[in-house]
Amino acid sequence: MTESTPPSARARAPRVQGTVRIVGAGLLGASIGHALSALGIDVALDDTSPAQLRLAVDYGAGRRAAEDDDPTLVVVAVPPDVTADVIERELTRFPRAVVTDVASVKLEPLHILRDRGVDLTHYIGSHPLAGRERGGAIAARADIFIGRPWVVCRDGETPSSDLALVEGLALDLGAMPIEMSPEDHDRAVALVSHVPQLVASLLAGRFVDAPEGSLGLAGQGVRDTTRIAASAPELWVQILGANATPVVDVLDALSADLRDVADALRAPDAPGARRAVADTIRRGNEGVERLPGKHGQNRRFEQVVVMVDDTPGQLGRLFGELGELDVNVEDLRLEHSPGAQFGLAEISVVPGAVRRAVEGLESRGWKIASTTND
Amino acid sequence: MTESTPPSARARAPRVQGTVRIVGAGLLGASIGHALSALGIDVALDDTSPAQLRLAVDYGAGRRAAEDDDPTLVVVAVPPDVTADVIERELTRFPRAVVTDVASVKLEPLHILRDRGVDLTHYIGSHPLAGRERGGAIAARADIFIGRPWVVCRDGETPSSDLALVEGLALDLGAMPIEMSPEDHDRAVALVSHVPQLVASLLAGRFVDAPEGSLGLAGQGVRDTTRIAASAPELWVQILGANATPVVDVLDALSADLRDVADALRAPDAPGARRAVADTIRRGNEGVERLPGKHGQNRRFEQVVVMVDDTPGQLGRLFGELGELDVNVEDLRLEHSPGAQFGLAEISVVPGAVRRAVEGLESRGWKIASTTND
Repeated sequence: MTESTPPSARARAPRVQGTVRIVGAGLLGASIGHALSALGIDVALDDTSPAQLRLAVDYGAGRRAAEDDDPTLVVVAVPPDVTADVIERELTRFPRAVVTDVASVKLEPLHILRDRGVDLTHYIGSHPLAGRERGGAIAARADIFIGRPWVVCRDGETPSSDLALVEGLALDLGAMPIEMSPEDHDRAVALVSHVPQLVASLLAGRFVDAPEGSLGLAGQGVRDTTRIAASAPELWVQILGANATPVVDVLDALSADLRDVADALRAPDAPGARRAVADTIRRGNEGVERLPGKHGQNRRFEQVVVMVDDTPGQLGRLFGELGELDVNVEDLRLEHSPGAQFGLAEISVVPGAVRRAVEGLESRGWKIASTTND
Repeated sequence: MTESTPPSARARAPRVQGTVRIVGAGLLGASIGHALSALGIDVALDDTSPAQLRLAVDYGAGRRAAEDDDPTLVVVAVPPDVTADVIERELTRFPRAVVTDVASVKLEPLHILRDRGVDLTHYIGSHPLAGRERGGAIAARADIFIGRPWVVCRDGETPSSDLALVEGLALDLGAMPIEMSPEDHDRAVALVSHVPQLVASLLAGRFVDAPEGSLGLAGQGVRDTTRIAASAPELWVQILGANATPVVDVLDALSADLRDVADALRAPDAPGARRAVADTIRRGNEGVERLPGKHGQNRRFEQVVVMVDDTPGQLGRLFGELGELDVNVEDLRLEHSPGAQFGLAEISVVPGAVRRAVEGLESRGWKIASTTND
């Protein structure tokens, strides 16, 4: 575990000033603490779990909160089911501070707080689209927000200075602040996060009673499709419950699509049946194309696949020589087949570097398995 | 494009002898041709497309088939919709040869051939679970079968010498022959391949009409879940049509599961509703655990995440030093956030090497972001 400065922040002075109080020292809270502390900002950590708090402090996410703290900003990073309560408590306790939260559903806490008549002038909901497969203070890392969207839900009454402070927090952590209404946010995460989680879980759920032999035929495709099915239930039950309506809307639409394609396969000779199946795959092509790539807008990398002997030092030689060729590796994946004496290193480089990489490597005796401009 | 010898085969003499005739010089046919040619086996290629055939021959997948060829083995690697016709033709034309095919559905061609009263004594259906995202002779590669399952569907009447020949083909290519009935095979691929494809396509299809902003919140999870939605429609329409019944069975079960969880979210206070949602995620955990890992049975690698400056040569230094530390990298993934000045290299190593890797790298000034035994 280590603390590191988001490079985008390293460049200039932090936008956030004064003391930042973080309630909840889990993965997100502690990660924000690491990043802010690295920027020299005074971070006061609080958590109902003494063990979690001790860990976060020991790892350098900040100091323990003190009675006389006077924070300019309070970040509520607690589980969804207690988010509204903690927001209300913090607003009452620190009337001069701006209070934000990082919960992954934005409408439900807002409704609860409005129903209670809480003054929300200085509350701004937000949601950093960041995380890791492992949770807790111990998995916290200062860099998880870099390049990720950070949704900020401004409200009519929100003073723009408050908004600037929360957006400044996102920018200080290297994230991209995006203004959205709570309604749009919740519909968006239902579509791109909550329903995909359920779909992966439901599909993987079909494997529970499958004969061992059939699962032996599984390849990379189904592994990717069901990877997130490994997520922990506790948090997801809360998230799905808190965002039920938008999630159910997408599920119902998906359910209808699924029935249509099943019916088409059941009666292949019915008018339009074959076409319905083809359209399902075609719409999928179209939809997946709309997703931003791993590199955000920049999906324009070319892949060069190099054969590498499966012995220590080979990758070292490869990347050393790529360095000599002044080829920067943007992304990389090593395919390693069981029983094989070699692996295939798929290297992503900017298009301008493909020729240099291929010719340079081949002249140095490397075998190029393929390139995307084959 | 390059041709390479499966190392598992390099060791000893090939099991397949004589001339192997391959009908269909696409990705699978040409890849089999490359691997067999590299083993010194006489490969006779045939294809209805002169251009495809020329490419495969030029790239070294084999020679053009001749009138007087007398193959010991015929491999039918044509699209599903013509597979049965070509199998029948080859059985008639080469009565002394064993004929196999590599189609991804096994029962339908068998039914067609039986209905036509074709003598199937020397036909053995097979299915190598191998492929690439790109198709065609140009994407062919000798190594795509290494470590992959290769299903062989033996029939009652099959002489064991014929079976041995087809299993020998799989072994010569570095694949793992698995005997299965056509029924079991088709049910298995419906579950682990055909339905996952449809599910990914249906989910991605929901993105077609989604507001741009909502897709901007997409992360790695949904990208993985929908990656295979990019597959080409033509082939999938044939595959799904040919395996409709088993696919529909899984779709119906999935559809019911989906409706149940939607109902549970619609009426969260109904008895058992919250539990139903939790069970969906939990069953997903259980199911995904049953999938064989990327390394087959061996999923016991530990991950070490190292921070790497995003400059040429850095990875070279890292892997060079891992080589010095005698740490073999089993698998590797580079996470590169847009806007970040550094990437995170997630390295998979055998558990015994974690400590050596971490201590050795840290002593050389590397920052370890995390290890799986955090």
